[in-house]
Order: sequence, then structure tokens, then C-alpha cells
Amino acid sequence: MRIPILKLHNYLLISIQIEMDDNTAVQFQEDLLDKIHQTGASGVVIDLTSVEIIDSFIAKVLGDVVKMSDLMGAKVVLTGIQPAVAVTLIDLGIHLQGVPTALNLEQGLIKLRQELGE
Amino acid sequence: MRIPILKLHNYLLISIQIEMDDNTAVQFQEDLLDKIHQTGASGVVIDLTSVEIIDSFIAKVLGDVVKMSDLMGAKVVLTGIQPAVAVTLIDLGIHLQGVPTALNLEQGLIKLRQELGE
Repeated sequence: MRIPILKLHNYLLISIQIEMDDNTAVQFQEDLLDKIHQTGASGVVIDLTSVEIIDSFIAKVLGDVVKMSDLMGAKVVLTGIQPAVAVTLIDLGIHLQGVPTALNLEQGLIKLRQELGE
Repeated sequence: MRIPILKLHNYLLISIQIEMDDNTAVQFQEDLLDKIHQTGASGVVIDLTSVEIIDSFIAKVLGDVVKMSDLMGAKVVLTGIQPAVAVTLIDLGIHLQGVPTALNLEQGLIKLRQELGE
């Protein structure tokens, strides 16, 4: 299955509301990069509010997709990171340094506008 | 599988990017009504840009969910209805009278604000 990616103005919005398996995560990475390329989006908000646990593979894919999007010129904001997910990310050494985070989608969009100076 | 529902300010955004089977459609109906109840959302945008065909059952569920959301006090705007989907809806007698429509998600949000007088 695929995670839907919404385009709103110049941004892409993603809310992950399923437990991702490895294939879904890899497919998501591919879909997001394609969509950034297609739409020329300048920013991405990935909302993880509904993600309660995360394993090392998914965490790595997520860390990678942030860096890849950045390389392509789209700023990523992660929102709604739950305590257990934060613990896992740090335990795995995925520090996501320089990645802006926010509480929820609304705050994420505000942060994105700030980051992009819009 | 479930269709993710994003909350943005006072609105719910849904982009249907999979081919829905009957169970997914019914689950979506239930999830959307629950989410309206939980969040007190005043408006909903359902984006159908990626839906290329629709069968009679799904069309009925979609028509119903619009009326149900309306009863609960949330205005629904449908966006991105493809030609084949428009044909199917009318052929099946699902006229969605009084349901505002728009080209895409951005336009849908603008329409929603107009409809709600915001």
C-alpha cells in the first residue's frame, strides 16, 4: 500500500497513520522524492502523530528521506513525534540534526514558512 | 487499510490515492464521521484527483458520507473529480446536489472558506 501525499500550495503534506512495513517505507521514500520532482515543492511536512513505534529500518528510511529531500531542495519538517519514537530515533543514532520539528501539522506549516523565509 | 485523514486548522483533508474496495470505503466513512465528532471540524475537503474509476457501491458510500457529514455540521467540498467519475456518479443518479466542488485541494480550501463564510 502507498502513503498518500497531498499537495497544498507549494508544500507537500503527509500524515503517516498506518504501521509501516519495510516495503511501504521504501515505496514512500520513492513516492515522496518523485512528487518533489514533479511538483517542484519547496517544503514537506511529515506528520508522525499516529506513529507509536518505529523500528531501526523505518527510522533509517525516514532519516534518509529527510536528507534526500533536502538535497533536492525541499525542506522537511517532522511533526508529532511521539515519546517512544523520539527514544528509538536517538537510540539508533538518528539525530536528524538540523531537521525542524513541530507539534502538529498546523505548527509544522508555520515552521516551514519560517524556515523558508516566506 | 485506512485512508489517512489530516486535520488542518478547523478542516479535515483527505486525498484518496488508492483504488478503494468496499471495506476501505465503509471504513473511511466511519473514520471520517468519528474524526468530525472528535475534532469538531467545520469543513472537509475530499480530493479525488487520483480516483480514476468508481463503482456503484463506492459512489453510494461517497454520496452518503457527504450527507452524513452535513448532518453532523461539517461542510464537504469534493475536489478533482475526473471525467469518468463524474459520468459514473450521474449515471448512477448520485447528483450530489448542493455539494460544492473544486479543481484541486487549494481551490477546495478556498471554496470551503467561502461556503462557511470565513
